[in-house]
Amino acid sequence: MATPVSPIPLLKDELDIVIPTIRNLDFLEMWRPFFQPYHLIIVQDGDPSKVIKVPEGFDYELYNRNDINRILGPKASCISFKDSACRCFGFMVSKKKYIYTIDDDCFVAKEPSGKDINALEQHIKNLLTPSTPFFFNTLYDPYQAGADFVRGYPFSLREGVPTAVSHGLWLNIPDYDAPTQLVKPRERNTRYVDAVMTIPKGTLFPMCGMNLGFNRELIGPAMYFGLMGDGQPIGRYDDMWAGWCTKVICDHLGLGVKTGLPYIWHSKASNPFVNLKKEYKGIYWQEEIIPFFQTTTLPKECTTVQKCYIELAKQVKAKLSKVDEYFVKLADAMVTWIEAWDELNPSGGKAAELANGASK
Amino acid sequence: MATPVSPIPLLKDELDIVIPTIRNLDFLEMWRPFFQPYHLIIVQDGDPSKVIKVPEGFDYELYNRNDINRILGPKASCISFKDSACRCFGFMVSKKKYIYTIDDDCFVAKEPSGKDINALEQHIKNLLTPSTPFFFNTLYDPYQAGADFVRGYPFSLREGVPTAVSHGLWLNIPDYDAPTQLVKPRERNTRYVDAVMTIPKGTLFPMCGMNLGFNRELIGPAMYFGLMGDGQPIGRYDDMWAGWCTKVICDHLGLGVKTGLPYIWHSKASNPFVNLKKEYKGIYWQEEIIPFFQTTTLPKECTTVQKCYIELAKQVKAKLSKVDEYFVKLADAMVTWIEAWDELNPSGGKAAELANGASK
Repeated sequence: MATPVSPIPLLKDELDIVIPTIRNLDFLEMWRPFFQPYHLIIVQDGDPSKVIKVPEGFDYELYNRNDINRILGPKASCISFKDSACRCFGFMVSKKKYIYTIDDDCFVAKEPSGKDINALEQHIKNLLTPSTPFFFNTLYDPYQAGADFVRGYPFSLREGVPTAVSHGLWLNIPDYDAPTQLVKPRERNTRYVDAVMTIPKGTLFPMCGMNLGFNRELIGPAMYFGLMGDGQPIGRYDDMWAGWCTKVICDHLGLGVKTGLPYIWHSKASNPFVNLKKEYKGIYWQEEIIPFFQTTTLPKECTTVQKCYIELAKQVKAKLSKVDEYFVKLADAMVTWIEAWDELNPSGGKAAELANGASK
Repeated sequence: MATPVSPIPLLKDELDIVIPTIRNLDFLEMWRPFFQPYHLIIVQDGDPSKVIKVPEGFDYELYNRNDINRILGPKASCISFKDSACRCFGFMVSKKKYIYTIDDDCFVAKEPSGKDINALEQHIKNLLTPSTPFFFNTLYDPYQAGADFVRGYPFSLREGVPTAVSHGLWLNIPDYDAPTQLVKPRERNTRYVDAVMTIPKGTLFPMCGMNLGFNRELIGPAMYFGLMGDGQPIGRYDDMWAGWCTKVICDHLGLGVKTGLPYIWHSKASNPFVNLKKEYKGIYWQEEIIPFFQTTTLPKECTTVQKCYIELAKQVKAKLSKVDEYFVKLADAMVTWIEAWDELNPSGGKAAELANGASK
């Protein structure tokens, strides 16, 4: 059931590539064979007067802070500044069904055979095949070529559920927190694990935004990267926040989250001292945030991602504000985000409701 | 934190290799470099008058049906006949802390580099390092050399929990059910996935008994392979049954189950027509059995594997007997199994209670 390699790029007119950046996008040269057919949405962070150069031949739109403020008005407050969390603005303005987002320090990785990995194509395959969140398949993704469900896998679960998220990994510099970076400055990820798997229902995972695909129609409004960076007490938890919220909502709506292939080549470790400053509150806050997400339940009435997200915002305010008043601000921003999303995507809620036939 | 490769075989005096068989054990020749230092427990199935030849130089004890009947008396009824489920008798008579069990049609597999895989050594490493059932680590087993926990993994969970089970995989002939064998007679598993991972808490998996290691002290009494084969309405669900029971009990007691490496080379597909006959009841029964195990909970008073298992037997009788009266017989056999286990292992319950410090 694997998607055959197509001479026409898969989903060419149905997918946007979202890139947050503060610099010229020379890294796109290496991605040209894979990305050029697609439309790019570049979210320029930091000084809006700076000119970002995009290599010739790419089809793109670019938004800087002035654009974000102009388009969202007062609701622009929900979009982070001076933090790659601003990428979620790109998810909001896209009109496509699928999103792939990648950091500008990520390059094309190679398979053990030496072949260049078309990360985008693998994400699309992950997103176009179902997920299996209710039972673990020991031979990993049963929808990949040459694989299937093993003996003992219930037949009633083999149809799977729609895949909402495809979380890709990183060779070379692993995505470590500041303490681990400090302790293991030279550790590199050289292990190529040739697998894609569904993260089981009820299990949370640390979602990294560096190399991430998702079905915007199914889960887009949950892909809010929170309040980070300028004026905020934390950073580097933007993607984690989106991952916790997304996973809880996917579990509730009967949608799947995959992780594994594809790899990108992560070129440069960020500064662990700077990271520590950004992270340290998150490191102890997460000890309370994660149990919150592990135990949270959404009522049956939450039948769209928007409804789920608003309910989650309510629970965040009620239960996490005791951790820090930051969560009151964050909960409000979550609501603002949904309002802004619905303004820019007037039929979004409805589409999501129709698509989520398999709600629990 | 990976266990270094030792010149002395790891756990040489603390591990038994259990092999159920009906034929001469020529397959051991290929395993000689890895298995010879260890003690073997051979459980001879079928005609007890047949002489099983074991290659020279192996240290072993062998039990045939007459031995089982003599040792267990009337309780021998809980040990299956004419089915590899009889292997669990070997788990019961072992006096060691660890068990590795392997089928006699499994040979040494090779890494992609061409190097022979010492499956036993990898199982031991899996068992000697902790598991992480409460949160998913996207770079897989964080205790392997060159790996760690990724950004966003809660620090309070990084100590992990004791590992009870190490479930290995198979190259060449995948472990498919009869319908899949019939539909895909030529499918071979050639994908070497270089990963070990913890199966998250609350998630069931299809445990295969072909290539399996476990900590007998932590989980042994749950490794009952049920009533299969001669005189029973099903076969080929022995390991599945053990897997469901084991996973529920591990989740309750705060123990870990790993799957992934090591691979063995599974040489020969069993006959799909024969398999279909053995399996067909299981195929539809499992549609009710799995929801049963997914929703079952064990009371706090169940602090040993034995107590958990007896409680599970009670629930099986109460809730699965409506599926088929076979489950009444099976529930009784589960109780008999524990009685026999405790008879042969008088201090087992206590050891398990002490070892399971981290009960939920």
